[in-house]
Amino acid sequence: MKYEMRGFSRRRAIVALFATLLCGFVNRSASAQIDPLPSWNDGTAKKSITDFVARVTTQGDADFVPIEQRIATFDNDGTLWCEQPVYFQLAFAFDRVRAMAPQHPEWKTTQPFKALLDQNMQAFAAFREKGLLQIVAATHTGMTTDEFSNAVLGWTVGARHPRFNRPYTELVYQPMLELLAYLRANGFKTFIVSGGGIEFMRPWVEKIYGIPPEQVVGSSGIVKFQIDASGKPELMKLDKIEFVDDGPGKPVGINRFIGRRPIFAFGNSDGDLQMLQWTAAGPGARFAGIVHHTDALREYAYDRQSKIGKLDKAWAEAEQRNWTIVDMKRDWKTVFPEARPR
Amino acid sequence: MKYEMRGFSRRRAIVALFATLLCGFVNRSASAQIDPLPSWNDGTAKKSITDFVARVTTQGDADFVPIEQRIATFDNDGTLWCEQPVYFQLAFAFDRVRAMAPQHPEWKTTQPFKALLDQNMQAFAAFREKGLLQIVAATHTGMTTDEFSNAVLGWTVGARHPRFNRPYTELVYQPMLELLAYLRANGFKTFIVSGGGIEFMRPWVEKIYGIPPEQVVGSSGIVKFQIDASGKPELMKLDKIEFVDDGPGKPVGINRFIGRRPIFAFGNSDGDLQMLQWTAAGPGARFAGIVHHTDALREYAYDRQSKIGKLDKAWAEAEQRNWTIVDMKRDWKTVFPEARPR
Repeated sequence: MKYEMRGFSRRRAIVALFATLLCGFVNRSASAQIDPLPSWNDGTAKKSITDFVARVTTQGDADFVPIEQRIATFDNDGTLWCEQPVYFQLAFAFDRVRAMAPQHPEWKTTQPFKALLDQNMQAFAAFREKGLLQIVAATHTGMTTDEFSNAVLGWTVGARHPRFNRPYTELVYQPMLELLAYLRANGFKTFIVSGGGIEFMRPWVEKIYGIPPEQVVGSSGIVKFQIDASGKPELMKLDKIEFVDDGPGKPVGINRFIGRRPIFAFGNSDGDLQMLQWTAAGPGARFAGIVHHTDALREYAYDRQSKIGKLDKAWAEAEQRNWTIVDMKRDWKTVFPEARPR
Repeated sequence: MKYEMRGFSRRRAIVALFATLLCGFVNRSASAQIDPLPSWNDGTAKKSITDFVARVTTQGDADFVPIEQRIATFDNDGTLWCEQPVYFQLAFAFDRVRAMAPQHPEWKTTQPFKALLDQNMQAFAAFREKGLLQIVAATHTGMTTDEFSNAVLGWTVGARHPRFNRPYTELVYQPMLELLAYLRANGFKTFIVSGGGIEFMRPWVEKIYGIPPEQVVGSSGIVKFQIDASGKPELMKLDKIEFVDDGPGKPVGINRFIGRRPIFAFGNSDGDLQMLQWTAAGPGARFAGIVHHTDALREYAYDRQSKIGKLDKAWAEAEQRNWTIVDMKRDWKTVFPEARPR
């Protein structure tokens, strides 16, 4: 009995030892060989990222940053996912009008709903910003936060992008997914700081980006707490804008929601300029990056003249201050992830 | 050589095995013996907490909650730290008026500043809420967020509570510090949801409570992004209230900042009622707790009639719904932590 126990122990011990040695071996070769950013082509953009991360995470380096201060913020539209031919939240609003139309027979004869339901986008455009605000109000307010969240989730499953014929949530940038994971593996806390609606993003970003709802900063409408007729508390979305998280609103939103200045920020348009300025102006090592859409074949090509995602002032400042400019065509091996089997 | 290697391996293997077995043993006995809440007396309050945590963290239990949904929210004033004889943020504002007075000679003859500088609190009280707002505006706005943060930090080091003669940040409740740590050790993310100013709390809560700035929800004023004369971006605190995170504002603040409903919430006054209602009304296991200040000797005793931290409606609802009511005198072995050596 005693002998058997000892034999058993020895066998287990030897297995344990080999497992330990093997783990050590695999880890060492992994860190030496596995590229954390495989969808990035080698070049100055990729190198500026990995160099920065190495510097701020190396104990004893002059640029070392304690883990709790490793805050990274990312714009969403055009930085983490595609924003063409229209912001995806607008595509959601348009689809939602169609989905809600049976409950709103009056829309058949009321503008701007009629134009949208007739798919007459030229007529719809004539209503300009006011028309858009009416559509957003009709599709984003007058319901509880739970109801809205369910509507968004349903849309992410069912809707398809007109050009790529894929769910919108698959039109995220594979290189940026890798960058998010790489930063988190290096102790960074990753945040979204988007002009998009905070309640529109939160239902799906955790699954898609690995960013939890509490790390999402965005534009918002007023929400009201009330007790419904059955005594159940609910949060009702009202038709009143609360906060626009765009341009100078981005550092304000960062201060409000995060309460610390990021050391790393990525955007793609002039709406991100102030976030990048605020990030870059802090003490110590700082990273400011811009995605430049240069790839009409695999995605879209646009910058100074674009209505959506205009990149002009932020581009000039990036060049002047030596921020990292990612040239999508040159720097990204892949744009979108492989389609998921359906 | 071969023999030696094998001998070496065997020795290492045996050491590794014993280390493994020992770890298992220590862990098991640790979890059986170490009380995670040593400053809580045994009783229904303590038991309701540990029972809840056991249920939501046990795989296979009907009440199991995935780790990312383990959100716990805590009021601050009167729940995590003392709030008598005045909210500590008000004590800060009063001290700040005295500190800023040399730069404001006009305050010697201007009310309500004169009354405060003369320490004539009866005269000051005559200015009511308007007087308070003037003091808050003078001490909390017209400066950058960095300047305000430094002012708060300086105050936490220098100021002393009039009765206990200790820094205000030492007048936190030891049992609640243990509860925060216990929840975090069980996968919870802990948040502050306070009527107090978000910018007043953030500079010190990480060190005191282990709660990072991005997990603080509070009241706020409008902040503006601007570039100063030297070209440096800054965030200026304006004299305009943005959000009051109190009463029905608390579930709204939770929705805005966290974007998920807590499963665990603790408060101490009617200002926490809606947060507790919102938390308790979600599906699955829920914990709602109230600190009842019953200990005039070690802290303070107050509830229904108190101007600060009035506990009336929330108390009634807690009794009706069987929420956990902590009786400070009965349930807490210790109130404040040991004084730190100075």
